[in-house]
Amino acid sequence: MPRRGGGRGLPSLSVRCSQTVSPDAGQVTLPPEFALIARHWRPLAGEGALALSDDAALLTPPPGRELVLAADAMVAGVHFLPDDPPDTIGRKLLRVNLSDLAAMGAEPLGYLMTIALPRGTSDAWLAGFAHGLAEDQAAFGLHALGGDTVSTPGPLALSLTILGTVPPGQALRRSGAREGDELWVSGAIGGGWLGLRAARGEIADPDGRFATRYRTPEPRLALGLALRGVARAAMDVSDGLLQDAGHLCRASGCGVEVELARIPLFGPAHDALAQLAGGDDYELLFAAAPQDAARVEAASHAAGTPAARIGRFTPGSPRVILRDGAGRDITPARQGWSHTE
Amino acid sequence: MPRRGGGRGLPSLSVRCSQTVSPDAGQVTLPPEFALIARHWRPLAGEGALALSDDAALLTPPPGRELVLAADAMVAGVHFLPDDPPDTIGRKLLRVNLSDLAAMGAEPLGYLMTIALPRGTSDAWLAGFAHGLAEDQAAFGLHALGGDTVSTPGPLALSLTILGTVPPGQALRRSGAREGDELWVSGAIGGGWLGLRAARGEIADPDGRFATRYRTPEPRLALGLALRGVARAAMDVSDGLLQDAGHLCRASGCGVEVELARIPLFGPAHDALAQLAGGDDYELLFAAAPQDAARVEAASHAAGTPAARIGRFTPGSPRVILRDGAGRDITPARQGWSHTE
Repeated sequence: MPRRGGGRGLPSLSVRCSQTVSPDAGQVTLPPEFALIARHWRPLAGEGALALSDDAALLTPPPGRELVLAADAMVAGVHFLPDDPPDTIGRKLLRVNLSDLAAMGAEPLGYLMTIALPRGTSDAWLAGFAHGLAEDQAAFGLHALGGDTVSTPGPLALSLTILGTVPPGQALRRSGAREGDELWVSGAIGGGWLGLRAARGEIADPDGRFATRYRTPEPRLALGLALRGVARAAMDVSDGLLQDAGHLCRASGCGVEVELARIPLFGPAHDALAQLAGGDDYELLFAAAPQDAARVEAASHAAGTPAARIGRFTPGSPRVILRDGAGRDITPARQGWSHTE
Repeated sequence: MPRRGGGRGLPSLSVRCSQTVSPDAGQVTLPPEFALIARHWRPLAGEGALALSDDAALLTPPPGRELVLAADAMVAGVHFLPDDPPDTIGRKLLRVNLSDLAAMGAEPLGYLMTIALPRGTSDAWLAGFAHGLAEDQAAFGLHALGGDTVSTPGPLALSLTILGTVPPGQALRRSGAREGDELWVSGAIGGGWLGLRAARGEIADPDGRFATRYRTPEPRLALGLALRGVARAAMDVSDGLLQDAGHLCRASGCGVEVELARIPLFGPAHDALAQLAGGDDYELLFAAAPQDAARVEAASHAAGTPAARIGRFTPGSPRVILRDGAGRDITPARQGWSHTE
């Protein structure tokens, strides 16, 4: 299968067998799940007999492009529920990283994933995990370039590094918003918050759409691409919309006023302020000049992803102010998952 | 600080704050160590006010080069001792990845690291961890390009993706050895095995050199570079010398006969066969044509890294045979950390 961007992949999906520090692990072979995951991993690297046979992967970077690189980690019991369907777990990690590419206006190229796997993981679990990744790779147009599987006495811990590309100088950044620009958001906000509660059985979710939203967010890649040269600043919403709006403000050196009534809530809405603070939305939050509103609408239409104007950037300190329909300041004290600095 | 290879880095060393699945984590801020690690991380990304301010890093790939990519993971209690000095832990992971670049004949470019951090990790530990990385970055000529820090209820789990470059077509591969080629190894074998035992207090280590070898292996980058166009095949020794010689054989489609007396053992030697099977050596194991022996010696001299001829590739099945000084077959049943396939 030809690789995107002229690259050729020599995947290095190693299963590492170096000595472990546990004295009683001295003379034993690796547990059988390591053979299983090697088997499940291999197809993810695409075709080619070289799979698994070298120390590293080789990739010819697409000429005339900048590389875009991001890495995220997820731990069972922290970032996903241990009993989430296995096919959704790798997909979520891949999609969270794809969302970082979307926020930069980048196109996916490939990824490397490491897996710290609890002993005794079943073949069915591994097959489901790999199946989800295979489906998402095909859907989003990228391949595994490498990885590593190791054993852990702790919870399943995954790490993924994604590579994408943009034309030089065209990456969307957080720092370009200016006073008077409009703040936009794609899709709907609060689905991640609702979905976690649904997955924990705390709220009803008859058609499963809340949990699906939490487990398999939609990276807004097409919109990110369409916004290159249109948006002045962009990021994805992972910590909560208001919190992340604050990140845009700090990077851009201005404030923003957001109108609650304009924010599209994933619905039926339950608790608007909690939905704004919940995070895990993976929508694009971006700034555009007022005169570019029609270009944003066109980009949104072309990408098939709704976008709504929800606020306006203001001069002065990098504060986020939330206003109700009467213009009152209803900014909550807690705006999202607090960074402690 | 100008970046190597014409790249410009917009580091994305995020500390992720998205919602966690634990119900009691609902409304709290992240624990204070997350602020600390952000502070410790930032200098690793080099200078530049853009650090921490975007969703991903941007890198202009050096023109006319292939990218070399590898990823490895390490878990406390599996790949290092939980009470290993913190400065050695990040260094080991970086060096293990650098060793993969060395095995490909590649030059380091940058890395992304994710950290799943147990709660309550001390500032002193984090400072030590970051200090070790900072020193090794400087020593090996690369920078952090991005990363992610998350919380875990389990043991410390680290993952690192490394990027390097090679001139097109010049990467060393595992598959190029031919019948009649000589098998070489750099440095000395068995230090990883001795070092783990020393670190566990099982053997004497008066000057600490065994433990140092285990905790901070030496990636053979200069030798890997010097072997481009000289060695026909190469890999690094991570699973045990005989085991890894078998990997070279399978990739190259030939066998190999190794003479025990020629193998340089990390010493004073304790148990030769155990040292050969122990792994964690991170020496280069490579094939060269007999007529290129002088070129190998010159590369070894130029790199300041000893290299020894220890065997010869043979026709036929990809078997590793170990012979004693009298030519007897003393191949052990266990050759290293068994892959189960």
